[in-house]
Amino acid sequence: MNVGTFILDLSMSLDGFIAGSKDDKNPDSELGALDILHDWRFGGQSSTETEAYEVEKFKPMGAGIVGRRMLDLGIGPWGENPTFHMPIFVLSHETRKPITRQGGTTYTFITEGIESTLKRAKEAADGKDIMLLGGADVAQQYLKAGLLDEIHLHLVPVLLGEGIRLFENIGTEQINLEQISVIEEPGVTHLRFRVVK
Amino acid sequence: MNVGTFILDLSMSLDGFIAGSKDDKNPDSELGALDILHDWRFGGQSSTETEAYEVEKFKPMGAGIVGRRMLDLGIGPWGENPTFHMPIFVLSHETRKPITRQGGTTYTFITEGIESTLKRAKEAADGKDIMLLGGADVAQQYLKAGLLDEIHLHLVPVLLGEGIRLFENIGTEQINLEQISVIEEPGVTHLRFRVVK
Repeated sequence: MNVGTFILDLSMSLDGFIAGSKDDKNPDSELGALDILHDWRFGGQSSTETEAYEVEKFKPMGAGIVGRRMLDLGIGPWGENPTFHMPIFVLSHETRKPITRQGGTTYTFITEGIESTLKRAKEAADGKDIMLLGGADVAQQYLKAGLLDEIHLHLVPVLLGEGIRLFENIGTEQINLEQISVIEEPGVTHLRFRVVK
Repeated sequence: MNVGTFILDLSMSLDGFIAGSKDDKNPDSELGALDILHDWRFGGQSSTETEAYEVEKFKPMGAGIVGRRMLDLGIGPWGENPTFHMPIFVLSHETRKPITRQGGTTYTFITEGIESTLKRAKEAADGKDIMLLGGADVAQQYLKAGLLDEIHLHLVPVLLGEGIRLFENIGTEQINLEQISVIEEPGVTHLRFRVVK
């Protein structure tokens, strides 16, 4: 069986944050930070460049994985017909009914941990690639377990000063990466790395 | 009087570290981390591409600023004839005699804080640019004070998991940046940003 590449794909500020702070008393600040990090994607819907990039990005993907908290934040912006067009597996502590969206996107909740979730996603992907959409804690777990194949970052030119850091709690063992590609676009730089195993 | 651009220029791991941890009991780990972050420069002395990049980088510079701790770490690797070829002002708590190197590089110790040091460097630069070489605490002070004009990062494809973070202690006020240029080289990506004021 062909097994696809397992790819982490996230927008990150130059100072390493992928979301606003966890301060639940001030949810606006968190959404504010998310807006800034995703303006290159959602703010530029009219940009054919950005659209083409999205389509190109999801073309080789057969399934996605996302943390429950990230799903809660993303499910609105991702809309009724998400650009995923594939099954998305949600790492969760609670059982929930699957959610079906237009265009082939489904959100299926898995409660058996990161390895089982990856196994389910690989089966669903059937040889195509699997995309890890975040959030930070899920990404850190997969990184630390050595299960990630590639890291694709959308580096946004802003310093937030606070928030949820992507690269934290990943242990102190050096993880070597190889540059795959660097693409500069207005308001964002797309960086792709291979995890050296 | 023309005033040059004040530029922070540092090598950084993808997880945001510019040096190893401050553990003085284990200096090897720190130097190890530094080696990894500077291999693209010092490891590739035979690379005409890297040499050309260095020469091009320092050409518009009239002076440099560096923290005392960074000087102590860098003064060896930078050698007897550093590529700077200009006066370097060292932010220091103690008075020390200036150190003269070949090819126009001098290290002058300033004890009156970041603004006085920048003033001295601007005078010496005489309209040319001023380069801030680090370390993290000095960079953070200049960033927070709103005195930096540009940030040039040499992003190294490695996750260190620990060390000294560049973007920390810079307050929680969002700092917007503009992408100036992105240059991909083997083993490093050079990112240049303008600080929006």
